[in-house]
Amino acid sequence: RRHRSLGRQGGKVVNDDCTQEADVYIENGIIQQVGKELMIPGGAKVIDASGKLVLPGGIDTSVHLEESFMNATTADDFYSGTKAALAGGTTMVIGHVLPEKNDSLLEAYESCRGSADSKACCDYALHVGVTWWGPKVRAEMEKLVREKGVSSFQMFMAYKDMFMLRDGELFQALQHCKDIGAIARVHAENGELVVEGAKEALDLGISGPEGIEISRPEELEAEATHRAITIANRAHCPIYLVNVSSMSAGDEVATAKMQGKVVHGETTTAYAVLNGMQYYHQDWAYAAAHVTVPPLRLDPSTPNYLMSLLGNDTLNVVASDHRPFTIKQRAMGKDDFTKIPHGLPGIQDRMSVIWEKGVIGGKMDENRFVAVTSSNAAKIYNLYPRKGRIIPGADADVVVWDPEGSKTISVDNQVQGGDVNLYEGLRCHGVPLVTISRGRLVYENGIFTCAEGSGKFCPLRTFPDYLYKKMVQREKVPDRWDRK
Amino acid sequence: RRHRSLGRQGGKVVNDDCTQEADVYIENGIIQQVGKELMIPGGAKVIDASGKLVLPGGIDTSVHLEESFMNATTADDFYSGTKAALAGGTTMVIGHVLPEKNDSLLEAYESCRGSADSKACCDYALHVGVTWWGPKVRAEMEKLVREKGVSSFQMFMAYKDMFMLRDGELFQALQHCKDIGAIARVHAENGELVVEGAKEALDLGISGPEGIEISRPEELEAEATHRAITIANRAHCPIYLVNVSSMSAGDEVATAKMQGKVVHGETTTAYAVLNGMQYYHQDWAYAAAHVTVPPLRLDPSTPNYLMSLLGNDTLNVVASDHRPFTIKQRAMGKDDFTKIPHGLPGIQDRMSVIWEKGVIGGKMDENRFVAVTSSNAAKIYNLYPRKGRIIPGADADVVVWDPEGSKTISVDNQVQGGDVNLYEGLRCHGVPLVTISRGRLVYENGIFTCAEGSGKFCPLRTFPDYLYKKMVQREKVPDRWDRK
Amino acid sequence: RRHRSLGRQGGKVVNDDCTQEADVYIENGIIQQVGKELMIPGGAKVIDASGKLVLPGGIDTSVHLEESFMNATTADDFYSGTKAALAGGTTMVIGHVLPEKNDSLLEAYESCRGSADSKACCDYALHVGVTWWGPKVRAEMEKLVREKGVSSFQMFMAYKDMFMLRDGELFQALQHCKDIGAIARVHAENGELVVEGAKEALDLGISGPEGIEISRPEELEAEATHRAITIANRAHCPIYLVNVSSMSAGDEVATAKMQGKVVHGETTTAYAVLNGMQYYHQDWAYAAAHVTVPPLRLDPSTPNYLMSLLGNDTLNVVASDHRPFTIKQRAMGKDDFTKIPHGLPGIQDRMSVIWEKGVIGGKMDENRFVAVTSSNAAKIYNLYPRKGRIIPGADADVVVWDPEGSKTISVDNQVQGGDVNLYEGLRCHGVPLVTISRGRLVYENGIFTCAEGSGKFCPLRTFPDYLYKKMVQREKVPDRWDRK
Amino acid sequence: RRHRSLGRQGGKVVNDDCTQEADVYIENGIIQQVGKELMIPGGAKVIDASGKLVLPGGIDTSVHLEESFMNATTADDFYSGTKAALAGGTTMVIGHVLPEKNDSLLEAYESCRGSADSKACCDYALHVGVTWWGPKVRAEMEKLVREKGVSSFQMFMAYKDMFMLRDGELFQALQHCKDIGAIARVHAENGELVVEGAKEALDLGISGPEGIEISRPEELEAEATHRAITIANRAHCPIYLVNVSSMSAGDEVATAKMQGKVVHGETTTAYAVLNGMQYYHQDWAYAAAHVTVPPLRLDPSTPNYLMSLLGNDTLNVVASDHRPFTIKQRAMGKDDFTKIPHGLPGIQDRMSVIWEKGVIGGKMDENRFVAVTSSNAAKIYNLYPRKGRIIPGADADVVVWDPEGSKTISVDNQVQGGDVNLYEGLRCHGVPLVTISRGRLVYENGIFTCAEGSGKFCPLRTFPDYLYKKMVQREKVPDRWDRK
Repeated sequence: RRHRSLGRQGGKVVNDDCTQEADVYIENGIIQQVGKELMIPGGAKVIDASGKLVLPGGIDTSVHLEESFMNATTADDFYSGTKAALAGGTTMVIGHVLPEKNDSLLEAYESCRGSADSKACCDYALHVGVTWWGPKVRAEMEKLVREKGVSSFQMFMAYKDMFMLRDGELFQALQHCKDIGAIARVHAENGELVVEGAKEALDLGISGPEGIEISRPEELEAEATHRAITIANRAHCPIYLVNVSSMSAGDEVATAKMQGKVVHGETTTAYAVLNGMQYYHQDWAYAAAHVTVPPLRLDPSTPNYLMSLLGNDTLNVVASDHRPFTIKQRAMGKDDFTKIPHGLPGIQDRMSVIWEKGVIGGKMDENRFVAVTSSNAAKIYNLYPRKGRIIPGADADVVVWDPEGSKTISVDNQVQGGDVNLYEGLRCHGVPLVTISRGRLVYENGIFTCAEGSGKFCPLRTFPDYLYKKMVQREKVPDRWDRK
Repeated sequence: RRHRSLGRQGGKVVNDDCTQEADVYIENGIIQQVGKELMIPGGAKVIDASGKLVLPGGIDTSVHLEESFMNATTADDFYSGTKAALAGGTTMVIGHVLPEKNDSLLEAYESCRGSADSKACCDYALHVGVTWWGPKVRAEMEKLVREKGVSSFQMFMAYKDMFMLRDGELFQALQHCKDIGAIARVHAENGELVVEGAKEALDLGISGPEGIEISRPEELEAEATHRAITIANRAHCPIYLVNVSSMSAGDEVATAKMQGKVVHGETTTAYAVLNGMQYYHQDWAYAAAHVTVPPLRLDPSTPNYLMSLLGNDTLNVVASDHRPFTIKQRAMGKDDFTKIPHGLPGIQDRMSVIWEKGVIGGKMDENRFVAVTSSNAAKIYNLYPRKGRIIPGADADVVVWDPEGSKTISVDNQVQGGDVNLYEGLRCHGVPLVTISRGRLVYENGIFTCAEGSGKFCPLRTFPDYLYKKMVQREKVPDRWDRK
Repeated sequence: RRHRSLGRQGGKVVNDDCTQEADVYIENGIIQQVGKELMIPGGAKVIDASGKLVLPGGIDTSVHLEESFMNATTADDFYSGTKAALAGGTTMVIGHVLPEKNDSLLEAYESCRGSADSKACCDYALHVGVTWWGPKVRAEMEKLVREKGVSSFQMFMAYKDMFMLRDGELFQALQHCKDIGAIARVHAENGELVVEGAKEALDLGISGPEGIEISRPEELEAEATHRAITIANRAHCPIYLVNVSSMSAGDEVATAKMQGKVVHGETTTAYAVLNGMQYYHQDWAYAAAHVTVPPLRLDPSTPNYLMSLLGNDTLNVVASDHRPFTIKQRAMGKDDFTKIPHGLPGIQDRMSVIWEKGVIGGKMDENRFVAVTSSNAAKIYNLYPRKGRIIPGADADVVVWDPEGSKTISVDNQVQGGDVNLYEGLRCHGVPLVTISRGRLVYENGIFTCAEGSGKFCPLRTFPDYLYKKMVQREKVPDRWDRK
Repeated sequence: RRHRSLGRQGGKVVNDDCTQEADVYIENGIIQQVGKELMIPGGAKVIDASGKLVLPGGIDTSVHLEESFMNATTADDFYSGTKAALAGGTTMVIGHVLPEKNDSLLEAYESCRGSADSKACCDYALHVGVTWWGPKVRAEMEKLVREKGVSSFQMFMAYKDMFMLRDGELFQALQHCKDIGAIARVHAENGELVVEGAKEALDLGISGPEGIEISRPEELEAEATHRAITIANRAHCPIYLVNVSSMSAGDEVATAKMQGKVVHGETTTAYAVLNGMQYYHQDWAYAAAHVTVPPLRLDPSTPNYLMSLLGNDTLNVVASDHRPFTIKQRAMGKDDFTKIPHGLPGIQDRMSVIWEKGVIGGKMDENRFVAVTSSNAAKIYNLYPRKGRIIPGADADVVVWDPEGSKTISVDNQVQGGDVNLYEGLRCHGVPLVTISRGRLVYENGIFTCAEGSGKFCPLRTFPDYLYKKMVQREKVPDRWDRK
């Protein structure tokens, strides 16, 4: 049975390379035509998009749903989380599977699939954490890649004695990623110094949320970023840095790109908008609500700088890294900031907030906005142009965006879980009106029409051209490309 | 009367964002369909592209045809020059109109059109030089933009007492460009120091071709590049630096981009491949054949570095800056290097040479190759996606490229004029097989089927989104975007 | 007749390389001995310096005394100005001779000597401005150097149509400096853009003191600094940048040093302590009192950054650039900021303010303090170790400094002229107690014992080793040193 | 009994701040007077230094004498090694004590003293390696500092499973250094990646000396340098990087200095003169003779760049890191480069080679030469101005240097041990004629007059002003100094 066919009129289609006035005709979950004055079959639902923009649905490359972490479980599962995503204009999410140390990656993956498949309302995929190292991990990575539709792994340089890999292990994991064509995501902070810093802060009697920033300042991130890039370069593996949160780490990424290294960077909405002064707020709950790692940065220039890096292609992707905890959950760390569960909410408001601060703020135009919220993710995760672009043949993941509309963000009317919204009171000039997922109209003006479990797991293919084509060629001519 | 319809089978269509297997169906000079297993009307000529790549035709953004300069006239006019372009896979060129000091820009433009229209074999457009400054120039720029299809102007910081604008004049010219939405091309070398350097070299008895490099070393370019970017920033005008020839000038461009400035850069095939040791060749004619400005650089790392900058989007476009002179013409400078006419040939081999050194060399993949040889130019000059992309609705400027083929470059079999080829003997692995211009098959395996004058002047529209959308938004929120 | 002999006990002698407990014995204006427990002849005046520091007297390398500039005459002449210097611990000043365009450098010099010789209370020397260019200037520079004890010339890249040299002229002036072994001081701002910026600001209705910063922002300084360094490098001339006022200009100096260029930098107390928010003060007189060029910078990180550059030897010297005007004089620019005379007071408080912000602030230790306030100046101007160091044989220019003492700066009790003090209310922990000039006790606890005209003109010798030794060697081995 | 008194006439005394014509009068091992036309007591031996330079004796801050390392014992003990030092103009050396893992630092120190005291011919001091970590090490460091005259410790980020400290351990060691006022020397290479690189190289069949460079390229040093500086900054400890061998590591040091961090750097003669092409020499013995770690670098610009960094004070000290092994000893690694003992000879020729390449090469003047070969070491190790400067009261460690003399270096006439000289055939224009140690003439024109064991152990005091004064002040005003 075929889906209802849809069309829309008079809008401007915004892709990452240009904007054009065009109608879009959708049938069977696929964009069938894009062009001016399309002839639309009778009976098709027509959405009037005059004066509006038609964007590829957002891809949120880092969300934590239904995850247990630091003795707490996130306030969203795959149902509520993906609903919130759709409400904000995001039509695909990539979640995390984080096995405990020594646990099977495969089992953790299967377990996550088990609950996600029946709940997700939009397309999703999964990253698996390489949270420890050994022959078994190596073998399971291969199996995940070959049989399970996983193509991305996340490695941690922090979380000592928990997830952290030592440099030699990280090198081997990256070599393996490159051999199997996977995407190597790396969280870069110096885990040993984090531990020393936390010890020192607690010894000095600093136990509040400000301790998170004091104990792991940005130099720890810049250091680890430099190190990660070096290790990846030695392993001839493309590297994708996650949670880039500071100016100095961003500079490391920029330097590596100038040297011709294949490096990509992901930041989050929170880093690109908020700074670390929040940790000094006198309301403990308010301050604690901002605890994440790396922490928000004290230097008030940071958010604008990161937004500029998104604008100039030093950073490629902005995710939400959605991992909502309640105030009560955070209160476990009332007397010891190291016990506050790490994570911030943001799956719902990512696109509007980036539009407000990035596009309205003059840091990027609407095309670059599409690039950092959708197309680049599709390219990196080998989904492009099936996703991340409005063209005939692509999945009909589409958002009608009102650049003249506005709304004020508030926890009071949010779809996502948790009891706080970091952007409370922010007025956003640019809002999603209609969200279409695989051709189904799932959200329109506040009304959801999506069914739990209607989202599909989206297996990812290895060796994305966007990361690997140049690397593969270089291996063929090792003596040529690296001559400065 | 409609053009013959064409199609092609089994190739891989390469755009700047991805590569896909697809057929391309062309009719009436326009790409009608791109997709797998297209149904092609009977009678259509079918070109077999199996195992081949189908690329957007190249756009050469800087060529000098039928130009008189430094007492010599270029060895190609619009007929022979555009034929050579087509043979190499380039389907559009942008030529230069360089009025003498105090001459009318309009008259110079009309005169150029006069001869070009009847000769060009491919689409072309024109830059006009702002070679002096005054109210008349200002008015003529406006007229050219409004009525004549010119949207780009070239300003010179070198050529003192000839084309050079002083800083205050350049500032006013850039302000004017921004007001009328034009593209400001700037040749950046410190013209005053060039004069001093030439005087000094000649005083020291250095009169040979090596004098060109000795008298205008790269620090003069880096200095002027920094200055040009500063002046443009003050004028709130996007800037497009031409002839970026050195590592230090490239670094200036990169730094400006990191600061969020709207800066683009064009280099040439010669700078990205050759170095300045050529000037020390003992054969005067050989050495003199490499005289251009800025000169090729002595540091042997330069070409690889510039190619990397093309690869990482610090530089956006590679042109030929084709301006061929014969050995005899160059001999005017036998005893004084300052009298050797400046300019290098290259219109024909640009794409194959960049493929060889860039793609085969591991500096860029095939998509980035399309970006720097075609799509970026289309975006900057506001032609995109009508040109620079293979999609339905675009002009059928298409090249069938054989990535497995190879050829050896030689002056003996070149189409372009002049008696020297700078890449003599270079074996290129990647060659154009078939060139289609506006749907007409104009070149196939060495045979031309284009008629003199069949190319069209292609008027350019102002305020290209690619340069101006962000700038315009910034003017609206001046207090927001530049807060670092 | 010999001077009274003096000694002092128990202090710590602070030179730029180390601190040592020692007595100092002075006779005939010369330091005779430095050592522990010196035997001091009967009758010598003994100054108890226990717990105090004994420093080389400060050298203020840029002061404007009895100068007419922009229709105003400075509020200090050589008498009051040098008295104020002595009160602050400065025992030598270098004044400026700034001939009008086309005027004779020699005559301007003689005229200045005429009034200065009879008034100065401490040693002094003179810079001469190369405020225009031509064969006469060239000849007079040589004469000043050979016969008049002048070894430093100041060139301006700003002050268009007044003092500004074009790049070619600056190149020739620097070549000439190098030929005669002079010190080339360069004021770096893009004079053409300054004019454009002022025009634009006035057109926009910006006429208040904030216009000075708006019309000549730091990018104009960074640009000109880069250009000046390039020109000097081409001329093989050591360059000494004056009035380095911004982070980006400081970075240009640092980069040049990393490249092995012979570049030195002078900032002023005001730049290293104050920022440009002052221009937005609602009291016009207060705001106008801060008008100087380059202007104080808006970025509030600037002063700390410049102080760090003094600390790490990127900048070498901190002068006062004392040029005091009264509020009434500044009022000439009430309706047009371009008419406010440029210049700030500071001759008296330079050392205490730098001690407070630099040494107490942790940016430099006491030895580095001596370097930037005295020894480096002595080295650059070829006076070292006769001045700038406490050793036997040196001129007895000495200050007893109390690192435990403190005072609050106020216009109410200042010795220098003018009706404003920029550091009003600043509490300085570190004060001069006793100042000795050429062996004469001239200032002690607020009491002056110096006679008008007792200071001596101090002729300067050319080719200081500190600037020229490396340059001269490089000329001998041109093919070796500049291979990166 | 007093030493014979000496004097010398007519030379130029070269200190690190200036050069002056002066005689030097020495008695009792101490410089008594420095000045023009000194009256010298009858009976004093007079050395004619007309036309010569009189320099402070060199201080070689890193030598390995009588050391067992990687199954080999160095070819020099304290007798032959210090004799060679004196022949080259070096009058003090600092040796290494490197305890095995888990061994007592104190016992290793005592054992070294045991043999050194009876053999050394010049003053010496000792660094102790913190080659493992634990409470015992911590306690012994303190004892060494308080009772044994040790003030410097060397930590290794390479030599995994042998000397390498993990980041947390290094942090604690640096904190401890800072608490006890010691100098923290750090060897920076990523030890984990070194192991991976060696494994990979051997797997690829690379077993020759070139493997040393292939397996530990400069990015491993730059990475570790960045990391070490970060760790030191977190520990508020001044850091002293040893064996800085690459451009990128040098850049890390420069960046840190620009940020106001207290960082010093030591390179070696070999790094500042030779490059890694040596490893590809077809004579195995020749290639193997250059094996050290970090290895010599492939980029041929490296030596000149490092020499420039010595010239511009980014690097502060050049040592020999003398550790001579014979060809036979190196042959242990005939089939496996990881078994070639690491170390290069150089104690004898350090000063002449640096003079030739640095001073004659135009990278530094004679004063800067004194700084990097002697004075800076004296400042850092808290010996200044007793050593490192020619002034009354200083130890009479003096060299008469002939800037016009020349000699050709050869293993055939070397004093140092081993069967190879890396500078074989290098003609040096600048040679030591006479060496005086503590007032004793010990070497003159090839003749030694020093007695075995006549050198003294020179205990070092903690908290050198040069490293600690600024750090200590910053601890007092933590909220002030680090505000950018």
